[in-house]
Amino acid sequence: MELLYSINAEGLMAMARPYKYTVSFREGDWRDKKLLGGKGSSLAQMTQMGLPVPPGFTITTVACRDFLGPRRAEIDQLVGELEKNPPPSIRDELISKIWSIINSQELPDGLMDEVRGRVHELEAETGKGFGNPANPLLLSVRSGAALSMPGMMDTVLNLGMNDAVAEGLAELAGNEWFAYDAYRRFLQMFGRIVLEIEDKEFDALTSKYNERLKSIASSARADELSRLASELPGYSPRIDAQPPREMAPGLWSDSVSLLRSMVSDLKSLIASKWGEFPQDPWRQLELAVKAVFRSWMNPRAIFYRMANNITPEMADCTAVNVVTMVFGNMGWDSGTGVYFTRNPSTGEDVPYGEFLPSAQGEDVVAGVRTPMGLEELKLRMPAVYGQLIEAGKKLERLNRDVMDIEFTVERGRLYFLQNRVAKMTPAARVKTAVDLANEGVISREDAVMKVDPQTVQNLLYPRIDPSAKASPIATGLPASPGAVSGQIVFHPDVAVEWSRSGREVILVRVETKPDDVHGFYAAKGILTSRGGMTSHAAVVARAIGKPAVVGAESISVDYDAKEIRVGGTTLKEGDWVTIDGSGGRVYPGKVPTVEPEIIPELEVLLSWADGFRRLGVRANADVPEDAEIARKFGAQGIGLLRIERMFRKPERLEVLRKVILSEGPEERREPLRRLSDMIRPDFKGILEAMDGLPVVIRLIDPPLHEFLPSPVEVLSQLHETRAAYLALKDSELARSMSPEVIKQYEAKLQELERLYSRVTALTEHNPMMGHRGVRVGVTDPDFYYYLTRAIMEATLDLLEEGRDPRVEIMIPQVMDVSEIKYVKSSSIEPAMSEVAAERGYRLERSPTRTSAYVISKGNTRTEVLVGTMVETVRATLTASEIAKEVAFFSFGTNDLTQATLSFSRDDVENKFLPKYLELGILAENPFQTIDVAGVGKLVRSATADGKASNPALEVGICGEHGGDPASIEFFHSAGLDYVSASPYRVMVARLAAARAALREGARSAPQVDK
Amino acid sequence: MELLYSINAEGLMAMARPYKYTVSFREGDWRDKKLLGGKGSSLAQMTQMGLPVPPGFTITTVACRDFLGPRRAEIDQLVGELEKNPPPSIRDELISKIWSIINSQELPDGLMDEVRGRVHELEAETGKGFGNPANPLLLSVRSGAALSMPGMMDTVLNLGMNDAVAEGLAELAGNEWFAYDAYRRFLQMFGRIVLEIEDKEFDALTSKYNERLKSIASSARADELSRLASELPGYSPRIDAQPPREMAPGLWSDSVSLLRSMVSDLKSLIASKWGEFPQDPWRQLELAVKAVFRSWMNPRAIFYRMANNITPEMADCTAVNVVTMVFGNMGWDSGTGVYFTRNPSTGEDVPYGEFLPSAQGEDVVAGVRTPMGLEELKLRMPAVYGQLIEAGKKLERLNRDVMDIEFTVERGRLYFLQNRVAKMTPAARVKTAVDLANEGVISREDAVMKVDPQTVQNLLYPRIDPSAKASPIATGLPASPGAVSGQIVFHPDVAVEWSRSGREVILVRVETKPDDVHGFYAAKGILTSRGGMTSHAAVVARAIGKPAVVGAESISVDYDAKEIRVGGTTLKEGDWVTIDGSGGRVYPGKVPTVEPEIIPELEVLLSWADGFRRLGVRANADVPEDAEIARKFGAQGIGLLRIERMFRKPERLEVLRKVILSEGPEERREPLRRLSDMIRPDFKGILEAMDGLPVVIRLIDPPLHEFLPSPVEVLSQLHETRAAYLALKDSELARSMSPEVIKQYEAKLQELERLYSRVTALTEHNPMMGHRGVRVGVTDPDFYYYLTRAIMEATLDLLEEGRDPRVEIMIPQVMDVSEIKYVKSSSIEPAMSEVAAERGYRLERSPTRTSAYVISKGNTRTEVLVGTMVETVRATLTASEIAKEVAFFSFGTNDLTQATLSFSRDDVENKFLPKYLELGILAENPFQTIDVAGVGKLVRSATADGKASNPALEVGICGEHGGDPASIEFFHSAGLDYVSASPYRVMVARLAAARAALREGARSAPQVDK
Repeated sequence: MELLYSINAEGLMAMARPYKYTVSFREGDWRDKKLLGGKGSSLAQMTQMGLPVPPGFTITTVACRDFLGPRRAEIDQLVGELEKNPPPSIRDELISKIWSIINSQELPDGLMDEVRGRVHELEAETGKGFGNPANPLLLSVRSGAALSMPGMMDTVLNLGMNDAVAEGLAELAGNEWFAYDAYRRFLQMFGRIVLEIEDKEFDALTSKYNERLKSIASSARADELSRLASELPGYSPRIDAQPPREMAPGLWSDSVSLLRSMVSDLKSLIASKWGEFPQDPWRQLELAVKAVFRSWMNPRAIFYRMANNITPEMADCTAVNVVTMVFGNMGWDSGTGVYFTRNPSTGEDVPYGEFLPSAQGEDVVAGVRTPMGLEELKLRMPAVYGQLIEAGKKLERLNRDVMDIEFTVERGRLYFLQNRVAKMTPAARVKTAVDLANEGVISREDAVMKVDPQTVQNLLYPRIDPSAKASPIATGLPASPGAVSGQIVFHPDVAVEWSRSGREVILVRVETKPDDVHGFYAAKGILTSRGGMTSHAAVVARAIGKPAVVGAESISVDYDAKEIRVGGTTLKEGDWVTIDGSGGRVYPGKVPTVEPEIIPELEVLLSWADGFRRLGVRANADVPEDAEIARKFGAQGIGLLRIERMFRKPERLEVLRKVILSEGPEERREPLRRLSDMIRPDFKGILEAMDGLPVVIRLIDPPLHEFLPSPVEVLSQLHETRAAYLALKDSELARSMSPEVIKQYEAKLQELERLYSRVTALTEHNPMMGHRGVRVGVTDPDFYYYLTRAIMEATLDLLEEGRDPRVEIMIPQVMDVSEIKYVKSSSIEPAMSEVAAERGYRLERSPTRTSAYVISKGNTRTEVLVGTMVETVRATLTASEIAKEVAFFSFGTNDLTQATLSFSRDDVENKFLPKYLELGILAENPFQTIDVAGVGKLVRSATADGKASNPALEVGICGEHGGDPASIEFFHSAGLDYVSASPYRVMVARLAAARAALREGARSAPQVDK
Repeated sequence: MELLYSINAEGLMAMARPYKYTVSFREGDWRDKKLLGGKGSSLAQMTQMGLPVPPGFTITTVACRDFLGPRRAEIDQLVGELEKNPPPSIRDELISKIWSIINSQELPDGLMDEVRGRVHELEAETGKGFGNPANPLLLSVRSGAALSMPGMMDTVLNLGMNDAVAEGLAELAGNEWFAYDAYRRFLQMFGRIVLEIEDKEFDALTSKYNERLKSIASSARADELSRLASELPGYSPRIDAQPPREMAPGLWSDSVSLLRSMVSDLKSLIASKWGEFPQDPWRQLELAVKAVFRSWMNPRAIFYRMANNITPEMADCTAVNVVTMVFGNMGWDSGTGVYFTRNPSTGEDVPYGEFLPSAQGEDVVAGVRTPMGLEELKLRMPAVYGQLIEAGKKLERLNRDVMDIEFTVERGRLYFLQNRVAKMTPAARVKTAVDLANEGVISREDAVMKVDPQTVQNLLYPRIDPSAKASPIATGLPASPGAVSGQIVFHPDVAVEWSRSGREVILVRVETKPDDVHGFYAAKGILTSRGGMTSHAAVVARAIGKPAVVGAESISVDYDAKEIRVGGTTLKEGDWVTIDGSGGRVYPGKVPTVEPEIIPELEVLLSWADGFRRLGVRANADVPEDAEIARKFGAQGIGLLRIERMFRKPERLEVLRKVILSEGPEERREPLRRLSDMIRPDFKGILEAMDGLPVVIRLIDPPLHEFLPSPVEVLSQLHETRAAYLALKDSELARSMSPEVIKQYEAKLQELERLYSRVTALTEHNPMMGHRGVRVGVTDPDFYYYLTRAIMEATLDLLEEGRDPRVEIMIPQVMDVSEIKYVKSSSIEPAMSEVAAERGYRLERSPTRTSAYVISKGNTRTEVLVGTMVETVRATLTASEIAKEVAFFSFGTNDLTQATLSFSRDDVENKFLPKYLELGILAENPFQTIDVAGVGKLVRSATADGKASNPALEVGICGEHGGDPASIEFFHSAGLDYVSASPYRVMVARLAAARAALREGARSAPQVDK
């Protein structure tokens, strides 16, 4: 442990003796991310590889820890209280206590002396002077923890700027615009980030100067403007875009004077909100370092760490990188860009990226201007391009993944500012993982571990139905794939609120920022009117797998009117819209979508995964079509076939209702026999589709009244019929009518009255815990008898056609072994033996396996297993006994979760569950991800007990958790044999199962990258 | 194990060498009940004490085991199959298989030789000859296992009788009537029991001869009859009653010739149903012994053993007792009787019993004639009486309990036929146990162990309200105490059926037999028109604690018409009747009853019990009156106060509805404050009643919509109001009415509409698992805040009055520790600290106890605990975590049972639970007796986990199981600190808790009698 926090030996040796808190990029051990942070590590790596990185140094996380140091225990205790989810008033109080401690902290002794020494080293290396107007050294100050963390302070550029330096820089660069633009930027960033003045103050100033420039341009400089429009198509008159001096000298000088005026306004703003702007660069630097350290305890950062369970072992405090400024905004031979070593959208091995000429990095990220593609950089600056690509490939091999590289070109010279593993679309993530393994860069295991199962799920997002006759109203950039419809909302909070109330929403914004991310999670998709493929909206949407269209510039977003306007169309908040994140298209209304096809690399990856996993993967399917899809997706059987779903067809429902409404066994048998004949072809179809693979068929489970109309429904029908009947009887007309009609009415009334009384009798207070599942099997043995007959008939039909049906009959809702004994001996065994006898087959108990029946005639044979669903708590507690009477267990984790938490799924999700998740009483929706501490405990012990008492016992899970990666990891560790998921989750499950096995194998080895 | 089946060493030594299977009464070790059976043991005991017992011997259980021996494994396997509760068809098949094996078995080699030897010993001792007409030895053959067991063959009297012996006996006794009556009895018993000919055949013959005798008597012998009626008031002309020869010579000779004719008819009956009646006494004896052995495997006996968990360790096979006949039917100086050493109804230490002159034992038991009291025996035969009483007292001391002794007087000479521990009324059981301990016969521990807790419960049966103006329509014997009303049924099966459908029934019979016992359990009470205090009906009713009136001879029971007639009244099946088993009175209709008073011996017994028990006993009470009763019954606190019960009063319900229907916290606060003021006096009242004892107050638990009218209710009200409103609006009248009325209607309609929408919104699919308990506390913190305020105010009020209130606040429906943390910090702690501050008290956390709050001012102080109900499965699974945040656990075993079994109590009891109990899938109703294998496992582990993580944790249980003796034994063993039961169950709980502790202490010592 101690080691994690200390500088490692190599680093120590490389460091000049007097330095305690700082490491230059040339010296640091770039592998030590915990010390240097992610950004510092990447800068050290690139520097040491010989790539052109602006000189700089890292203030290590040790300094940040020492900054908090004296009151660390106190802060930790307050954070601990916050983790208990106190009510809002207490939470606010805790936060303000933390904040007041942090604000009273001073930088550790000696840190600024050391920093001063490092800056002097930079001065020596660059030949410039910090705060020297004649040849000024400007710095960027960038935070960087071991893990990237939203909510923390990011970057301050151009630090060291002041009135004198700006003048000097203008002279030195021979470019007044550049110098004052840099000064303006610095004042904005410093004011906002370091001095904590609100954004909107700066935005208002920016808008004002943009308007002033635009109005000057359109009137006084209309000629220059029209020239520019033809030569520089990206250009528009904005305060942050440098007009080419030669082509538009008037506009240039207007811009410069506006910038000067804006700088003056910004200093006034700072003076009014914080105090006199510090002209002393050393004071600026000290304030910036402190601001970075403080931001580690920013409430947003604290909550992010809490929500993502980031422990001090993973990341403890932030580092600060102090880097010599290079300028992408020195003119049209400069610029800034992002380069992905492979296409992050498709995964193709072609360089991909964006470049924004005459701009600083923040302009690209914020998506304020739409950048050009990397091909254009290749044409304009082939040498720079070549150098970039070569470095990218090197970094890819070194870091064993696709890289995302920030760079700046200053007057034709390339500088590397950062590299990190690229965020990719699901398809790209899969393709590149497979390609990297095939290229020998990583192992197949690594490839599997690189692909998060959720990624595979996202691959399966639907597309717009090609046959749909929909015309897009706008086109933007295809930022994150998938087509999806939702109701328009404009604010992330509204997105959260609406989605909690069950609505599907699309979050529509001009552009997005880290504060908006909660809205991303709540929304089905994201649409912005500004920004590029690497804008915040695009990056985040891809990372979390939400479809997104960004930079759809023809759309005008009006937050106040809560509407968007495009062409002649206006869509209001709550209107439906469909976005296609793969094609970048926006459609009004709900457009039909179709299921996706599977990329070939996914098949490869999953075949590797299959080789690593121990858990089997089956699918839940109720109709032959679903079974076929499941098989195509690699299911190794059906883990849950719900007979009741076969009763949805009206003619079957009618017969089933006859069964339910019958008064006794005699009356019930005939419709049961008919029902049995009706569903036999369905069984046959599914068994045929899964030929040679096991199919678990669950005997009827839900409360019977679910198949009946509700009492209120019947009652109102009864009232209506009675009213009509009485009206008819009383009317003059009736006398002239045939008595037949009256009689028909009377019969109908009688039938409705009977129906009402039966429906009322069958109504239950808590149907989930009522007369259902095996309880129906016990009270009405004919039910399971006839269902088993249908299954057996289908099985023998297939056997006779030379097929290989593998049936597993599952008894639901069991709470005691005697229920199983009873229904086996009263229904299932008689049905099996009678059908076998009728058709000339032998039926024997398997000599080797409990509750397995061998059916044979001549050379044909099949084995039918009888097992149970484990979905009551008591079944888990008495698993040893139950296991002695069954061939398999299948955990019904939906019902088991309901019972363990006493959470009715039908009720809690819209009542208190949202509040519980909000307060953090529950970390996850327990119906999505298994509750390991509660339900998991039962699953684990029942599996162990069951297998101990019946070693041949097969144990699976068929609840919805079967398709959830985190749950699958748990099921692997609990020793289950297989999971069963919905067909569209089968691939996710295969991958998750492999990762669980690999992770288990690698538990003691160093953690594999996710 | 082996030892249990073998004859013990003493027994072996005492036995003459050549005897392997038989022991004479003089030799057997009477302590070895497993070898001799209960009856054989009592006969050996009395013989060896020197009491006059007719000579005889016991065929030990070893012989019976050897009888089954060769095919024992096969039979055991079939019985094992039966225990799996197969469906009826399979069950019948299994039974017939067992039966066919048993029927093919022969007596073990050498057994009959040995028996012959033993009978020769009897011949030598009595000077009579077996089958010798000149001086015949007659025998009784009586079964007797280690435990008494209904369904097994009981007794055959007069064995050895045949045509020649009957003639010889008549001559020898000088009493033809006697000889042929004995022959008749033998043929009936032998035919019925040994040859298995149906009862009804014999009953028909008996009726026929009774009729014939009656008609002769009423016509030809009217004069004799009238003389007898005055001299022998008990006499009536029946074929089984010997007319005094001197007083009624004609009747006597008519009787004799009828008896002869009947004997002949009986032999014909046997010939037609079985084969020629065996005249050979040895053959008779062999058949009888075999019949006894067979009866061990009688289906009724098998099911009885299964139902009562009687294992081979407890009783394995039956013994057979062969006893020299003595005759109570030799005339009016003979007779037969039963003697209880103390009054089995009151427990008073006075001899009690009945004597039937001129009768054999079976006449008393069957209740066919009403016998005389023991006082009358004392007058008639003072020597016999004296001998009886002396023996009784000896036996009482030896056997350490009240004894029930069967005896026969033959021509003035007393014989003892059996002794056993008396069956007593609950009051007698309690009184005699205490008296025996006070007399030094038994220890106080023994006294406590002698009283089944259910007995104490039965003591608390209600009496007829003395102020009720009801007149009895009939009076019978007060056979089993308690007054109860129910609907009349005549057949035990109907009793079972009706009681399952929720009706309360009184089983009415002429007399009862062992076959009827299932009806006793189903009925609320028993009423018979014939039989005495020791008749079957009376004995069984007392044993199981059901009120019973027997021998109400004025009632005529008509099974065919399904009615009873008494005086001018006719009551039909389904009519209500009330019986008072304490007074022997029968009332038509439902008569009000009142609660009983407590006998002083019970207080003594319970004070002893309190000294032995470890479990505390609290009561569930919601109003001060219940708290007072609970305290009177010995409750050591309130274990559950349900706040919601305080809301039943209409004015409170109205305010609560305002709270529930409010749209937000603002609107809710005002009514909550009012509600808090309204219930504060209730808290005060209960805390005052329990001054100095803990009171656990549960914060509101049920789903809120339970306090609202149902949607259907509101909807119909809405419809009606709307219809009235529309009618009014359209009418001519409306124009002339003030618009005020119309407005009122409109307001009402609006209110109803709002109510309907709220009520509908609050409706849940499965409310037991919905938005309730702490979930309401989390979503609406004001709820718990104001409730806590009311509790605190009441507490401080009492403190200021110098009282000692001890409050424990309980949070219901918890499934995770964070719920507790949240409601404590958001509601409970703020309410406590605010009330304390307002009234000038200090509030501190207890330094020694988790979640305990010390409130003090000056010298006054009180400690308030905050704990949780453990009623979700997840709470039990995460008990370690939860225990760290609470001062106590209280298991809510009702909800926990629901969740563990997924049984909705509201639904299952009338749907499938009866079937489950019938099929034996469940042995007990899990809502009455705790399901040890399932729920018990959770209770046990949660208690252990909770105490391990918080050693000061107090653990109780407040579900309905808290008053169930079997469950209490479990809670003791699971390590709980207390149980909480309904006030009327507190005494039961005190006793059960003591017995659990004593049983635990005595686990390795020999089993104490129950």
